[in-house]
Amino acid sequence: MPAPFFNPLVANLSAPPIPLVQAWARDYSGTHGPLIDLSQAVPGYPPHRDMLQWLGEAASSTAYAGYGSIEGETVLRQAYADHVAGLYGAPVETANVHITAGCNQAFIAAIMAVAGAGDTVLMTNPFYFNHESTLAMLGIRARTVDASAARGFVPEVQAIAGALTRDVRALALVTPNNPTGAIYSPEMLRAVYDLCRANGTWLILDETYRDFLPTGSEAPHGLLALPDWQDTLIQLYSFSKSFCIPGHRLGAIVAGPDVVENVAKVMDNLQICAPRAPQAAVARAILPLTDWREANRAEIASRAAALHEVMSRLPDWRIEAIGAYFAFIRHPFDGISSVEVAERLAKVAGVVALPGVFFGEGQEQFLRFAFANADVATIRQLDTRLVLVHS
Amino acid sequence: MPAPFFNPLVANLSAPPIPLVQAWARDYSGTHGPLIDLSQAVPGYPPHRDMLQWLGEAASSTAYAGYGSIEGETVLRQAYADHVAGLYGAPVETANVHITAGCNQAFIAAIMAVAGAGDTVLMTNPFYFNHESTLAMLGIRARTVDASAARGFVPEVQAIAGALTRDVRALALVTPNNPTGAIYSPEMLRAVYDLCRANGTWLILDETYRDFLPTGSEAPHGLLALPDWQDTLIQLYSFSKSFCIPGHRLGAIVAGPDVVENVAKVMDNLQICAPRAPQAAVARAILPLTDWREANRAEIASRAAALHEVMSRLPDWRIEAIGAYFAFIRHPFDGISSVEVAERLAKVAGVVALPGVFFGEGQEQFLRFAFANADVATIRQLDTRLVLVHS
Repeated sequence: MPAPFFNPLVANLSAPPIPLVQAWARDYSGTHGPLIDLSQAVPGYPPHRDMLQWLGEAASSTAYAGYGSIEGETVLRQAYADHVAGLYGAPVETANVHITAGCNQAFIAAIMAVAGAGDTVLMTNPFYFNHESTLAMLGIRARTVDASAARGFVPEVQAIAGALTRDVRALALVTPNNPTGAIYSPEMLRAVYDLCRANGTWLILDETYRDFLPTGSEAPHGLLALPDWQDTLIQLYSFSKSFCIPGHRLGAIVAGPDVVENVAKVMDNLQICAPRAPQAAVARAILPLTDWREANRAEIASRAAALHEVMSRLPDWRIEAIGAYFAFIRHPFDGISSVEVAERLAKVAGVVALPGVFFGEGQEQFLRFAFANADVATIRQLDTRLVLVHS
Repeated sequence: MPAPFFNPLVANLSAPPIPLVQAWARDYSGTHGPLIDLSQAVPGYPPHRDMLQWLGEAASSTAYAGYGSIEGETVLRQAYADHVAGLYGAPVETANVHITAGCNQAFIAAIMAVAGAGDTVLMTNPFYFNHESTLAMLGIRARTVDASAARGFVPEVQAIAGALTRDVRALALVTPNNPTGAIYSPEMLRAVYDLCRANGTWLILDETYRDFLPTGSEAPHGLLALPDWQDTLIQLYSFSKSFCIPGHRLGAIVAGPDVVENVAKVMDNLQICAPRAPQAAVARAILPLTDWREANRAEIASRAAALHEVMSRLPDWRIEAIGAYFAFIRHPFDGISSVEVAERLAKVAGVVALPGVFFGEGQEQFLRFAFANADVATIRQLDTRLVLVHS
C-alpha cells in the first residue's frame, strides 16, 4: 500500500508555537510562585459584564441561529465603519468592511484575495509567525526586510523600496508590532504606502493592537484619509484583544469594495460567515464600551511602566522595544538558543515567553514578552524570576 | 500607477451562489403567496429551546471568552467521538476528532492538509459547489467522475477506479449527496475505500446530512470499523443542520491522529480555533437532544413524502433523486438554461431553488430543491407554483 500523503507545505510546518511553549510550563513546579504566562496575547482581565450579557442574549436568540451574510452582519459592519471613520477622520463606509472569524482569518482571506502559490509577499524580520506559516502553507514566497534592534525594529523605508520588486503582490506590516511592540510612525507608513502604490503592491496593515497604543488621541496614520487608499490599503483588526473575547473569534478587514468582494468569495469557502451572535453583541458594545477600552489602554500603559521598572533592576536583560502589547527582550545568554532560554524560563522560573527565533532567523538573542497579559503586581515579580535562569 | 492585482484564482470565481439566487427572490411580488425558499440547506424549524439556553449560558460565561485548543474543546471532541463510535460501532476516540467552524471549513482544512496547488483531487459531477470553488481558489486541479441521473446520481465504482490515477491525492464524496440527495450504499463506499487505499488516495467523506437519512437504525457505512481506516478515511460532519445552528459555525473532522495534527496546523492559520461557546453548548446537547433529532428525521421524511406527492401531480417535472435533505429535479424546459429556469421560478413563482449548472457542467436540465427547508403544508403548494413558469 502506498503511504498516506500529506501536503508537504503543511507537513513541513512546525507545530503551532503557543501550545508548544505552554507544554513547557506544565513542567514548572510552582516553587517560585504562580505561573506567569506571557506567551499568547490575551488580556489578563475579563470582558466587561455588559459584553458577556450581550453575548449571551445574542447566542440564545433564534435571530442568529441561521446563516448570515458572508461579509458580516450589517449592524456590525456599520458600527465598525463608523468607529474607524471617527478614529481616522476618514470616510469609511459599511461597504468597506468585511467581518472575519478573528484577525488570523482576516490575514489569510486578504492574502488569498491578492496572492496565490508562487507569488511573492514581503514581510519584516522579525515577523508574526502566523503570517509566515500562512504564506508557507499556501506556497506563497515570503521575502523579508530586516527590522533591526538598532532601529527599534522599524524597517527602513529605503530597504522596503529596495525589496519592492514588481513581483511583490503585498507588503504585510504589523503596527503596533507583533512580536516587538514597535510602533510605526504615520510618516513612515505614508512613505511605505506611496512605495506600494507606485509599485501596484497591496499594503496589508495588521492593526490588532491599535487600541493599546500609549496615547489614543491621534489617528495611528493618515492613510484612510487619502483619496485613493482603496486601491492600495487593506487594514486588518481584531475584536479579540480590545473586547477580551478571543474565544468568540471576531476580526475585521477594512478595504475597497472590490477587495471586500474577493474576500467574500474566499470567506464563503473558508467558513461561509463569521459566527453571528458575537457580531451582534460587539455591534452593541463598540460605543458604550469606549470608556472601558480607554481604561484598559491606561492599565496596559501602567503595565508597560512596571515592566520598564522591573527590567531596570536586571542589568543583563534589556528591553529592546516595547509597544502596545509586547516587549522584545534581549536575554543575557550568548550562545544559548532562544528556544533553550525560553524553555528554561518556563520550566525553572515559571515564566512563559516566546523564543525570538519563532519570529524569524537571527532573533536568537530575544524573547517576546506579551506583558499586557499580566497585571502590575505580577510584572513586578519578574526580576526575582528571571534571575533563576543561568547560562 | 499599476492596477491593483487580485489573485486570478479568486477573481475568476463566480460570486457565491446563495446570495445570487436570493437576490432574484427580491423581485418576487408575493402575488402567489409567501416566498418558498428551497435554496440554502437550512432546517425550517428553530433550534431546541434547551440548545438556545445552553448557547446563551456558554456565550455569557468568562470560561469561553479566552483562546481555546486549536483542535477543539476536549468536552466536545469526546462527546462527538462517543457519538460517532456509537453510531458506527467503531472505536473512535477524542484524538480522532478536530472541531472546525462549520463543514466548509472542515473540507478546506482537510484538503489543505493533503493537497496543494497543482495537485489533483477527484470529485463527482454534479458536485457541491463550495468543494469545487475551494479547490479552484487553492489552485488544486479538480477532476470529476460522472454521477448520472440514469444511475440515481451514484458514481460507478468502475469509473472511480479508472479516474484514480497515481496523482490523485484525495477523492471527495458527499453522502447523503449535495446536490442530488443520492445515498451511497455501504457496499459502494467500501469498494471505493478499497480503491482509495490501494492507490494511496485519501477518501474525504462529507456526511453533513447523515442525521437525515430516512432510517437511522443502521450505520451509514462500515468504514470506521476497518482496522486501517485512519490511513485512508477523513470524515466530515456539520452540527449546523442537525442542531439548527448554522449561524454558530460548527463542524467536525474524524480522522487519524496524524491527519488531526496536520489539520491543526492549517486551522491555527485559518482562525486559531472554532468559536468556543457553541462547542461547549453542543457538547451538552448531543445526548439529551437525541430524541429531538430523531423527531426531526421523521419530520424530514414526511417532507420528502409530501414532495413525492406534489410532484406526482406535475407530469412534466420529475424527481430524479431524493435523499436526506435535497431533491434533484428535472425541469421540463428543453433548451432553457437551468439558471434561467431558476431565475423565473424565483421571480415569477416565488420559489427559490438552485440551478443545476451551479453543480457542474451538463446539469442544465436540473434544479436542486433543499426541500427539508419547507414544512409539509408549504411543500404541498409547490404544484400551483411550478406551473406558473412557462417555456
